Amino acid sequence: MVLPVDRPVSVSTPVSSGASVTGGAPGATGTARVPGGSSAPVTSGSLPGSRKTYLIGSADGLRVPMREVVLSTGDSVILYDTSGPYTDAEQVTDVRRGLAPLRDAWIAARGDTEVYQGTAPEIRHGEGLRKPSPRRALPGRAVTQLAYARRGEVTPEMEFVALREGLPVETVRAEIAAGRAVLPANVNHPESEPMAIGRALLVKINANIGNSAVTSSIEEEVDKMVWATRWGADTVMDLSTGRDIHTTREWIIRNSPVPIGTVPIYQALEKAGGKAEELSWEIYRDTVIEQCEQGVDYMTVHAGVLLRYVPLTARRKTGIVSRGGSILAAWCLAHHQENFLYTHFAELCEILRAYDVTFSLGDGLRPGSIADANDAAQLAELATLGELTSVAWEHDVQVMIEGPGHVPMNKIKENVDLQRELCHDAPFYTLGPLTTDIAPGYDHITSAIGAAMIGWYGTAMLCYVTPKEHLGLPDRDDVKAGVIAYKIAAHAADLAKGHPGAQAWDDALSDARFDFRWTDQFHLALDPETAEAFHDETLPATPAKSAHFCSMCGPHFCSMKITQDVRRYAAEHGMGEIEAVDAGMREKSAEFAARGSHVYLPIAEA
Amino acid sequence: MVLPVDRPVSVSTPVSSGASVTGGAPGATGTARVPGGSSAPVTSGSLPGSRKTYLIGSADGLRVPMREVVLSTGDSVILYDTSGPYTDAEQVTDVRRGLAPLRDAWIAARGDTEVYQGTAPEIRHGEGLRKPSPRRALPGRAVTQLAYARRGEVTPEMEFVALREGLPVETVRAEIAAGRAVLPANVNHPESEPMAIGRALLVKINANIGNSAVTSSIEEEVDKMVWATRWGADTVMDLSTGRDIHTTREWIIRNSPVPIGTVPIYQALEKAGGKAEELSWEIYRDTVIEQCEQGVDYMTVHAGVLLRYVPLTARRKTGIVSRGGSILAAWCLAHHQENFLYTHFAELCEILRAYDVTFSLGDGLRPGSIADANDAAQLAELATLGELTSVAWEHDVQVMIEGPGHVPMNKIKENVDLQRELCHDAPFYTLGPLTTDIAPGYDHITSAIGAAMIGWYGTAMLCYVTPKEHLGLPDRDDVKAGVIAYKIAAHAADLAKGHPGAQAWDDALSDARFDFRWTDQFHLALDPETAEAFHDETLPATPAKSAHFCSMCGPHFCSMKITQDVRRYAAEHGMGEIEAVDAGMREKSAEFAARGSHVYLPIAEA
Repeated sequence: MVLPVDRPVSVSTPVSSGASVTGGAPGATGTARVPGGSSAPVTSGSLPGSRKTYLIGSADGLRVPMREVVLSTGDSVILYDTSGPYTDAEQVTDVRRGLAPLRDAWIAARGDTEVYQGTAPEIRHGEGLRKPSPRRALPGRAVTQLAYARRGEVTPEMEFVALREGLPVETVRAEIAAGRAVLPANVNHPESEPMAIGRALLVKINANIGNSAVTSSIEEEVDKMVWATRWGADTVMDLSTGRDIHTTREWIIRNSPVPIGTVPIYQALEKAGGKAEELSWEIYRDTVIEQCEQGVDYMTVHAGVLLRYVPLTARRKTGIVSRGGSILAAWCLAHHQENFLYTHFAELCEILRAYDVTFSLGDGLRPGSIADANDAAQLAELATLGELTSVAWEHDVQVMIEGPGHVPMNKIKENVDLQRELCHDAPFYTLGPLTTDIAPGYDHITSAIGAAMIGWYGTAMLCYVTPKEHLGLPDRDDVKAGVIAYKIAAHAADLAKGHPGAQAWDDALSDARFDFRWTDQFHLALDPETAEAFHDETLPATPAKSAHFCSMCGPHFCSMKITQDVRRYAAEHGMGEIEAVDAGMREKSAEFAARGSHVYLPIAEA
Repeated sequence: MVLPVDRPVSVSTPVSSGASVTGGAPGATGTARVPGGSSAPVTSGSLPGSRKTYLIGSADGLRVPMREVVLSTGDSVILYDTSGPYTDAEQVTDVRRGLAPLRDAWIAARGDTEVYQGTAPEIRHGEGLRKPSPRRALPGRAVTQLAYARRGEVTPEMEFVALREGLPVETVRAEIAAGRAVLPANVNHPESEPMAIGRALLVKINANIGNSAVTSSIEEEVDKMVWATRWGADTVMDLSTGRDIHTTREWIIRNSPVPIGTVPIYQALEKAGGKAEELSWEIYRDTVIEQCEQGVDYMTVHAGVLLRYVPLTARRKTGIVSRGGSILAAWCLAHHQENFLYTHFAELCEILRAYDVTFSLGDGLRPGSIADANDAAQLAELATLGELTSVAWEHDVQVMIEGPGHVPMNKIKENVDLQRELCHDAPFYTLGPLTTDIAPGYDHITSAIGAAMIGWYGTAMLCYVTPKEHLGLPDRDDVKAGVIAYKIAAHAADLAKGHPGAQAWDDALSDARFDFRWTDQFHLALDPETAEAFHDETLPATPAKSAHFCSMCGPHFCSMKITQDVRRYAAEHGMGEIEAVDAGMREKSAEFAARGSHVYLPIAEA
């Protein structure tokens, strides 16, 4: 998204030169470490050629960080920015303490919450971590953005979103009030920069991180969170299933500039000793409260996995592939009782309302293969999620709906249309979908295809898939590969939807490309470092970066070069007036020849 | 594509074990080198877990090579195979001599061609290369597959295609006769294994290779061709623009099991000293004849870049980005004459007919940015390509139509629909399209999205884009990345189109995944080596490959494991009869608990 230029802008930091900022500006890189013995610093510093810019709002302290790409022409392109203070060369971040709680004053000023003694366990290695007592709603109060929006109140969070999206604040409020958008913002995660998810807004992407019993450490996960937001993740889900779930999550939330999502059933199952049948509503409820107090912004709740739907999966090719869905299916079978998340859904709504935690109603019966797409089990659950959406809305709780999975291209639109109809326009949040099963190792691509399409059709947020999907846990490189693939999908969807301002980014890059402004092209790229590195593999010398050709064709065959000559020739001779062309053509032809017919300038002239 | 099992099959070679074949079977790897001092061997040997299988046809010597993946269950999956003899462990290939001319006997038996003294220049380092004198049609004869198909003749080439596609041979003949499919098969490239391109067939992909003035050698290009076909390229275009164009091409053609395409204007421009205005019909014609004699199977001809269309590009964001298009635009402007490819098109048809070279009518005015998509210049040229299609068909010459480029998702379908209407259902062959401009370094992904969609909408062949697009020349890794991304796009399109048999590949892989047959899953993957390597990064030990869980969740959280338990439980208790479920549920619940409620087996039991 590129903002119109007449917006109030405050630029806080000098632009970094493309050559020196890889790895961050001095003083901001490699200094902040997670305690516990890790030697891996959290990544910080500007992206090459970019600096942090702030849009100033009307609310107290409302400054919206944006990424400003400063071009060699003197122009700037201002882009949506998810990366938080880590990319601000003037801010020193310290993951041992956590980010500044920028929303604290706004939340307190509303006067509808109280601070209380929470129930959370001790945090390992948390000596320096800012860990305030939790807040919750005063009795009987709904402290959700949905409740405010329905009352016609514009919160600072909404204004922040409107500024960053380049949309009228009333649009943001109205979309939230109607349930067509959510603004996940737990009162206990004041560090987060507000963002919203809805079909009228830019398409968002989520990155999953989290350790498992088999691999990975807290330090790695915090760095993955920062790394994912650096490349554009709008939210991050912590799907940890191993030891130290609580501590890992605490570190992530205190340092996260984006909303954090979880799947509470994973931690509840740990508490139940890993035995699904020993789960209970009470264990689950306490786990949810613990996570609400920590600051989780949205939670995946598989309340639509009903007992009667489980047999619908028995003849599937790949059964139930959602972890949460399968845990609840096992519980339902073991007890022959209805899913306790369904039967206790109203109580769950009361809890989430007290913290403004957003429901992400999970698709526990999503298809795990092309063969199972859009089947009876999936669609039965979807209808139930629609029913639950209405219940949540009655409680003023924000809701989005999770979607598949594995779906061939010809069945993607049906998914969106059904979701929209059955779930009353609540935002859709899909995993991929993967459009074929044959490419393990490349599922960021099989799914980016489906994600781009489903985003175009109206899906509000796309959960990324990394190259390691189905094979292993993503490392840092995989996280980046997944985020980039999904930023591509989301932006392609924004373009196809005709989101105002979306194409300005493409236009700026294409202009730079056509003008052979190589460095500007790199800086405008979704991944400036890779673009420059790929260029340099073939033509590493600095002069090549101002060369009026590239290594694909060499100086004598460059089509862009030829076109520039055609255009210059056309401009000099008035050929811009297409209607007049034919009349004057013969004369112009002679002039062109007289000038030496140089359609390719020698390198020395370039 | 997976063939039905009742097809006659001849298996020539023992299956390779997954562990040993990476890098090829003994005796077939690393022995064949391109003379000229290179130390890089051409890649050969089976893919892991695959062996070469042959389908036997009715024509003399008609054996269709297929890739057979042999599973641990004893079942086989037979897949379309573009990789030629290089992946047959029983064949020894020698790039110094070239591949066996398998179509020679068929071509000679038709009795409509003559061998004559060609005009081609000397080949460098070509001492050992099989280099027969060229063939051409006897005077007045049309030796094209189109002419044969129109006369109702089923050629061995058509039968080969039908067997490999799993389609009735009459379908193949009828599609070619109607111009809806092409079978590019120059009589001077008898080494090629026949394939066809059309919307009723499997979606095909093309890989571009070729050196430029700046980089790359003949040896590298031959290896890239073999490498590209190993991963699934259905055709290869040699876009060389540097020195030794003729020699590079000769080595590629003599060793290529797939059709080779070129853009003759590149070589013609070399002959004109790199000066567009010094090009002439005569230089171009002689270049085309030289390439026809060498065995080029299809040629990109930018005959639709008309003088009056050139000014339509003057106000574009990125002008003319096609190299061929810009060269001809420059020529038109310099001479103020109509494009000589347009004015001499009938003569060109006569030449191509004599060798059965297929036209690939180039989109010289394709958009080079999102801003320029579907504009007047592009659509004007497309209408002219439709006009030329009719002319080519009058001469019995096969035709396909090239398409864009850079197109946002919402404008892709319009492209296909217009092409189909304006070009009378001639096969569409598109570059991507890229669905956004913002991701240089990742354009294999920006374009795989567009390619999958345009394939679904009816495009017959997708020209790949590598990660180096816009930045540099692709190396070996980039070629593979581009081919894999495009195989994904093509297969996703086949699935969405409902091509018979397409989904069987996905089903086989999903079955293996659900059964935790890890090795089968790797072997069925589009890229078995990467799938296995990614798995092994997290769980390298051999036992993990038979483990009933994976590193994403660990043994206690595996959803597939749980589902298997649910399914087994359901099967044991008759729950497959969904209607009967509810009645017996309470009883079953008790039984489940009595069995110990093991939804997760301990690792030792797995």
